[in-house]
Amino acid sequence: MEIKQLYEQVAEYLEQGDYQALRALLAEQEPFDLALVCEEIEEEKLPLVFRLMSKTLAAESFSEMSADIQESLIRRLSDTELKSVLDELYIDDTVDIIEEMPANVVKRILANSDPDSREQINTILNYPKNSAGSIMTVEYIRLERNMSVADAFVRIRRQGTEKETIYTCYVTDSNKTLVGVVTAMQLMLSDTDMLISEIMETNVISVTTDEDREEVARMMSSYDFLAMPVVDRDNRLVGIVTIDDAIDVVLEEATEDVEIMAGITPSDKPYLKAGVFETWIKRIPWLMLLMLSSTFTGAIISNYEESLSKLVILTAFIPMLMGTAGNAGGQTSVTVIRALSLGDVAPGDILRILWKEFRVSFLCGVSLAIVGYGKAVWLDGADPLVALVVSLTLLATVIAAKTVGCCFPVLIKRLGFDPAVVASPFITTVIDALALVVYFAVATALIPALN
Amino acid sequence: MEIKQLYEQVAEYLEQGDYQALRALLAEQEPFDLALVCEEIEEEKLPLVFRLMSKTLAAESFSEMSADIQESLIRRLSDTELKSVLDELYIDDTVDIIEEMPANVVKRILANSDPDSREQINTILNYPKNSAGSIMTVEYIRLERNMSVADAFVRIRRQGTEKETIYTCYVTDSNKTLVGVVTAMQLMLSDTDMLISEIMETNVISVTTDEDREEVARMMSSYDFLAMPVVDRDNRLVGIVTIDDAIDVVLEEATEDVEIMAGITPSDKPYLKAGVFETWIKRIPWLMLLMLSSTFTGAIISNYEESLSKLVILTAFIPMLMGTAGNAGGQTSVTVIRALSLGDVAPGDILRILWKEFRVSFLCGVSLAIVGYGKAVWLDGADPLVALVVSLTLLATVIAAKTVGCCFPVLIKRLGFDPAVVASPFITTVIDALALVVYFAVATALIPALN
Repeated sequence: MEIKQLYEQVAEYLEQGDYQALRALLAEQEPFDLALVCEEIEEEKLPLVFRLMSKTLAAESFSEMSADIQESLIRRLSDTELKSVLDELYIDDTVDIIEEMPANVVKRILANSDPDSREQINTILNYPKNSAGSIMTVEYIRLERNMSVADAFVRIRRQGTEKETIYTCYVTDSNKTLVGVVTAMQLMLSDTDMLISEIMETNVISVTTDEDREEVARMMSSYDFLAMPVVDRDNRLVGIVTIDDAIDVVLEEATEDVEIMAGITPSDKPYLKAGVFETWIKRIPWLMLLMLSSTFTGAIISNYEESLSKLVILTAFIPMLMGTAGNAGGQTSVTVIRALSLGDVAPGDILRILWKEFRVSFLCGVSLAIVGYGKAVWLDGADPLVALVVSLTLLATVIAAKTVGCCFPVLIKRLGFDPAVVASPFITTVIDALALVVYFAVATALIPALN
Repeated sequence: MEIKQLYEQVAEYLEQGDYQALRALLAEQEPFDLALVCEEIEEEKLPLVFRLMSKTLAAESFSEMSADIQESLIRRLSDTELKSVLDELYIDDTVDIIEEMPANVVKRILANSDPDSREQINTILNYPKNSAGSIMTVEYIRLERNMSVADAFVRIRRQGTEKETIYTCYVTDSNKTLVGVVTAMQLMLSDTDMLISEIMETNVISVTTDEDREEVARMMSSYDFLAMPVVDRDNRLVGIVTIDDAIDVVLEEATEDVEIMAGITPSDKPYLKAGVFETWIKRIPWLMLLMLSSTFTGAIISNYEESLSKLVILTAFIPMLMGTAGNAGGQTSVTVIRALSLGDVAPGDILRILWKEFRVSFLCGVSLAIVGYGKAVWLDGADPLVALVVSLTLLATVIAAKTVGCCFPVLIKRLGFDPAVVASPFITTVIDALALVVYFAVATALIPALN
């Protein structure tokens, strides 16, 4: 059923007060779809719909809702109701919700969590943003070396419903050190009297709590893991990151990278949920910074004011030259930034990168110079000498732009910063200035009338 | 162990000819790590290392290697060896490999696959690129309604090792119609004498073979699925997409989007693997197109040549105005393109998007106009009248650029194209031209000396 139809059906039952039919309809749906429907329902009717769902379904839908609906719902639920939802939620989902809520709602959530969960929530909240610790869950199946496969099944059957995954189980020794990993598949394919120590994988790949969450997701994708164990500095198991959270990380980080490259401070709100003022704040700093940095380009042009007034046609090519240099540099910097973030290249590869970019930029520069010459003479009606200047400038600036475009991100990465965040404003400013300086230098050298 | 250390150890054992130690070392490693090590080993020694791995490990590492190593290895393996690797590979991995190989290697692969696999490979190869059909696997566990949980376990134990996942099992009726889904978790938590029909989920979410693979990955992330069933037009189950392939799709699509926005034809090769000529081909069309489209901006400037020669300082502001308009438009188009591709907005939301962008662009325009005026007067030493022209142009072009930036992607999406592919070159050209036209119009209107 399409979401729209589902919503209309829900609204109709609400209207008619046919709660029995509504309860049956809700019970059949996916939590994610119910969350979408809840976005559309009038806020006063939300708690009613919510109460008609089973406890598990209510909790699962709740964790899929957007922050404002969650907040409105929390405010309308009684303490007992809130407590029962929180009991059903996985700890990492509770943490995600808390991170979006205002202080007074957070207080109510913590007050209605049981002491154990409260402690775990606080631990996870204390890990740095974007770290493995901040996205892990503490609800996993722990096994012991000397258990039999049959024992393991008993434990899984007893604890399974409260755990975020049962498909990867972790084996720890008496001081919680991670010593092995067993998948549900291995358990199901082994004889029930075998020992866990006989079937477990001992070469365990794990991450520490402070590992970057993007790196965790990338490792999970490389190793095809459904869960990644997270350990502290003493290799004691403290949590796991599950694949559903890893895929969310990949989606969020991709959006962030795209936003950063377009000069926007990343936001984790969906487009239409972000307010006008908030959107302005995310966009204006970069626009302002680049506008102010154009003082350089303006100053370079003013410096050659006399030459320009002698041969105004030179002005007509400025946007094209700066634009082409910017595009050429942008292609390289974006490619190198993405390759760095995918782990395809490391800062140590700088010489190989430079050599490759030099050859590519030479090919690009030559092709653009040839076509640019023709365009200047036949399309723009420029003098052959001016066309030659434009053509040589294209060749030189494309090579320079691509060199800058590959060196900056690598340099910034080596200095320990995120290339996507720092690279673009510098690169744009440097390339714009370079294009103009080269243009005027070539022009004054080749055109006698300018001297 | 770090990859570098691992490689050195492997190289040492190879040197010493200590194949027993090498075999033991290899057996402990993750397939992904072995693939990385194989990238470094001399090509002549590859088959030797490969033969020291167990059949399963060899196949799993093989599917993680880069295309050129795979090709070199296939050429060096005997038909019997190749056959044994292919028998171990999952069908969808074989398809991925075939897609990268030259025709004669493909022929050898198909000749050494068993007839059943060959038919399945051909079926998957026939689905359009980027469709669900092209990334699905046909190796999943199929159950029947009237089986008991115990029967299901027997089937899983018998077929499990050959299936890509056993964690989600699919229930079909006699003509292969998908009627339900059961997770391994449900099986493990249910009594062994219950019937599959009693525990299966009947409200099954599935996709058709021609669904876009990015949409499939997004649905799997929304619904937290480990696998998504793929059905034909008659709702008959033909395959499944597993989460490891979905996460690869998300990573690849994000890289593609970033490349497209930077004006590069997407490539699926890692940065250093792509040749110079190949890289040039991916980059030059966009550089060429944008250079040629700058004929418009050049023509606009030439048209106002006379005004510019009267007041050359006007030229100094051209890069800043075009740059700011381009940045403002880029912020909006990138945000809207990403929101469209994440499903946060739909073309029907155009009025809400326009209204939001109008208010944001007004705020941005006013802030830039104020700061831009100050900068022109105090930093660039411009006449107050010129500064006013610059300032008003900023306000008008930022609003115009953001309007263009949000309308184009939505329009292109509505026409059925991918906004990321088509939007950027048009948007850039239109915004550049707009900025100049507005600038000269305002200048001629306000500065008497120009008339």
